[in-house]
Amino acid sequence: MKGIEIKGISKTFKDTKALADVNLQLEEGKIYGLLGRNGAGKSTLLNIINNRIFQDEGTVTLDGEPVKENEQVLSRFFLVNENNLYPEGMKVKEAFFWGKEFYPDFDMEYADKLCKVFELPKKRKIKNLSTGYQSIFKNIMALSVNVPYVFLDEPVLGLDAYHRDLFYRLLIEKYAQNPFTVVISTHLLEEVTNIVEHVVIIKNGQIIKDESRDDILNGGYCVSGPAALVNAYISGRETIGEDTIGGLKTVYLLGRPDDVLPDGLEISSMNLQKLFIQLTGV
Amino acid sequence: MKGIEIKGISKTFKDTKALADVNLQLEEGKIYGLLGRNGAGKSTLLNIINNRIFQDEGTVTLDGEPVKENEQVLSRFFLVNENNLYPEGMKVKEAFFWGKEFYPDFDMEYADKLCKVFELPKKRKIKNLSTGYQSIFKNIMALSVNVPYVFLDEPVLGLDAYHRDLFYRLLIEKYAQNPFTVVISTHLLEEVTNIVEHVVIIKNGQIIKDESRDDILNGGYCVSGPAALVNAYISGRETIGEDTIGGLKTVYLLGRPDDVLPDGLEISSMNLQKLFIQLTGV
Repeated sequence: MKGIEIKGISKTFKDTKALADVNLQLEEGKIYGLLGRNGAGKSTLLNIINNRIFQDEGTVTLDGEPVKENEQVLSRFFLVNENNLYPEGMKVKEAFFWGKEFYPDFDMEYADKLCKVFELPKKRKIKNLSTGYQSIFKNIMALSVNVPYVFLDEPVLGLDAYHRDLFYRLLIEKYAQNPFTVVISTHLLEEVTNIVEHVVIIKNGQIIKDESRDDILNGGYCVSGPAALVNAYISGRETIGEDTIGGLKTVYLLGRPDDVLPDGLEISSMNLQKLFIQLTGV
Repeated sequence: MKGIEIKGISKTFKDTKALADVNLQLEEGKIYGLLGRNGAGKSTLLNIINNRIFQDEGTVTLDGEPVKENEQVLSRFFLVNENNLYPEGMKVKEAFFWGKEFYPDFDMEYADKLCKVFELPKKRKIKNLSTGYQSIFKNIMALSVNVPYVFLDEPVLGLDAYHRDLFYRLLIEKYAQNPFTVVISTHLLEEVTNIVEHVVIIKNGQIIKDESRDDILNGGYCVSGPAALVNAYISGRETIGEDTIGGLKTVYLLGRPDDVLPDGLEISSMNLQKLFIQLTGV
């Protein structure tokens, strides 16, 4: 099989089972959302795939080749996460230089351009950047390395709404020019709903959902309209959430809607955030 | 004056003007939202108030007493931010013990209870916690210290939706029992709209808005309804944003609505996030 194959991965930290028999395939050129509550095991899985920590059991392969301690394979991966692996005192522009050394296809011109777009001064030390600007720096690296597998563990940590939107737009632009595999882990689900093609949900170290976004969203629906009409519609049905703006109400339901709806009600597709809460809630 | 008074604060880092003549009052027992884009100066201001860095110009006083290097005054403040000031290797339970030493009103029983609620193991080293659990740990400290001024610089960094909601509910519960001053800085504005009483917006190191939440939200309004009706209503008016769910549309406008609206349209109050983007956008 082409792509990444994760087979039977388990990992325990002291008395905590972080991952339990995880099986997953990540295909070439596809954008994945890796979703889960705090502590579900997302970061552990990404760290194992990227050889940052070792599994207790199981294997990760790329195009059939084991990933573990395989420099050839790992040079095709790039992981952005909360850890700062850059040496104390290293400046942004030095990190770009290092990036180019390690990743031959690193696009220095594009990285420079993104620094201007995000107003990141290249002379600044990485360590002295705010949380938001550390995320920006790491995302610029991820967008510039030009490797076929990019893993983004909470890429919008500390970013304001404008910068979050800008980052996702640039990611999509890059992907459209030349598709690559992207695995995005985030707690701001609404912002990635339209970006991810495939959704993997992890709960207590186990994968509980591994489906295309469309299949997942088709598993439920939303009904919107004046509150009184919506309340009449949901009487006797089980809803999994609701939102109200002014006198308008939107409710979220599992299953498929009736073929004919009362006048004044609108059907739309499921909201990923609501579905996620339903699947992973406490 | 009772409370914190910030007068003429300026701060420059090398060639960057971080704050320029900032004047602000923070009253006793009030919840403030301190909002601004990445790099606007929010964290610098909070660090100066809390004596973590020094201003170039200006003064910060509490009840008329200078804050600078004043241990008596500073023991009434607690700042949660991205910096981890806890010694390498310190465990959660050790930090609680230290908290109790420094803050006599630290509520150990409550801190223990919150660890259970958030499933934070007290034996873990702070440094080894994930970004989300580091935020949880710091928030538990902030909710347990019982000082009259608590500053939360992006308290929900890395938290999942459930934990964000839980934290804000606990904060409100605590505040309702015994009001204290809280200053919250966050990029997830929708989640604090109903919590903050007063909003301070900072842009390029200057305060551009310092008003009660209600006054700010009353400066604009939303109109919702079937898209065709909404489009007819906004024709010739300037909108600052819009959302669409199914065939229903919500638009955001500045000013006051007409006294009489066309049938089928609903008026509701302004959305803080939309207004913020309008005020701080690039």
